[in-house]
Amino acid sequence: MEIFWTDRIEAGLCFLGEEESAHCVRVLRHREGDNVCVIDGAGTMYECVLSQASPKAAVARIEKANPGWGSHPYRLEMAVCPTKNIDRYEWFVEKATEVGTDRFVPVIGDHSERKVLKTERLRRIVLSAAKQSLKAAVPEISEPLTVKEFIASVADSPALKMIACCFEDEGYPRTSVMQALSGTDKREYIVLIGPEGDFSREEVKLATEAGFIPVHLGESRLRTETAALAAVFAAYYNNI
Amino acid sequence: MEIFWTDRIEAGLCFLGEEESAHCVRVLRHREGDNVCVIDGAGTMYECVLSQASPKAAVARIEKANPGWGSHPYRLEMAVCPTKNIDRYEWFVEKATEVGTDRFVPVIGDHSERKVLKTERLRRIVLSAAKQSLKAAVPEISEPLTVKEFIASVADSPALKMIACCFEDEGYPRTSVMQALSGTDKREYIVLIGPEGDFSREEVKLATEAGFIPVHLGESRLRTETAALAAVFAAYYNNI
Repeated sequence: MEIFWTDRIEAGLCFLGEEESAHCVRVLRHREGDNVCVIDGAGTMYECVLSQASPKAAVARIEKANPGWGSHPYRLEMAVCPTKNIDRYEWFVEKATEVGTDRFVPVIGDHSERKVLKTERLRRIVLSAAKQSLKAAVPEISEPLTVKEFIASVADSPALKMIACCFEDEGYPRTSVMQALSGTDKREYIVLIGPEGDFSREEVKLATEAGFIPVHLGESRLRTETAALAAVFAAYYNNI
Repeated sequence: MEIFWTDRIEAGLCFLGEEESAHCVRVLRHREGDNVCVIDGAGTMYECVLSQASPKAAVARIEKANPGWGSHPYRLEMAVCPTKNIDRYEWFVEKATEVGTDRFVPVIGDHSERKVLKTERLRRIVLSAAKQSLKAAVPEISEPLTVKEFIASVADSPALKMIACCFEDEGYPRTSVMQALSGTDKREYIVLIGPEGDFSREEVKLATEAGFIPVHLGESRLRTETAALAAVFAAYYNNI
């Protein structure tokens, strides 16, 4: 099933942008009257009939709306420090979208080697991963923040906030991520994952003061991107 | 920490092969008297002192043996159909090694598009992933089998055997992989994951007759390699 995306829906019509129109009409050769599926990126999939097969500005008439299409029963924000090798970060974003994530925040830590990140490629990746895994909601990709800025930005959030840090001392006893998840009835989660060089002590201190629970992801020594995906799977399995 | 591998340990000495010797002596410039770590690939890490810094045949004297180094409290065999795009299979093997897997069996299904696979690259990937994630046991990479051959080969295994199939009908009610895992005290698991085109009905029939439990991996529609990694994480989280 081929799925298209648009952020412009008016009066029962889906107006596809230039790229999606070209893909629909020029590449896949859809013609007027063909059935097509269009997602709004916000959670609804529309079953449509193509009414204007223009390769620059295709239009599809909505026949049926399917809200919550491919949704998951929780909200997950992953604030993950970009890896040195950006490919690893990109596959994490792709996989986490498939499994179920609502927002990605690239965060730059005191010990991050990579301090800049272009979000444009990530936006393409989450869109295609959402289509591929039949989800009408496309995860949000935030612009990068420092770890400290991110912590401050969610200080008042009622979500279950967890920070995966590698050191366990000075009053930061860690529980397993699964224990933390099963021990709450909250269904909104925020997970903070550090860079290859781990968080600075100041970052962990700020996080715990802002209500983040220090968690561990089990015994295995996981790469940054694997640890991040481990947290995504923990949230996923805690809700099935 | 740099880790080397050898399968030749005699009389308290680790004899490194040509590749590992060159890496140790030529690339990393280790000299006689340096401390080095050597894994045997079977589960033990040896703390050693380099006694012969030969770039072709280095020798390290064992000071201390650490059995079960980086081990996990279960045994997991993943029989996964290779993906069309082999990169996706290779990253699954890398990630699954990091998280904890004991044996990989590339299996070819009736609906597999890819019917051949070179295991040489996979052996390099599991070795480097095991070193990188500080595990002394390197997962076994079996030569490819057909799905039917694999099912027959484990018919008598006492392990908890699970098959992740997409269709749920004709008497194949599926339980979630987490339910299947938490519902047993077995610590030995075999998971069978099909190709992009799913299993044939005959394969599922043979598997269930051989004691495989049909399982699902939750609501998300996962790619083959993501589904395989989901099963690896399920086993991991069921044991922490």
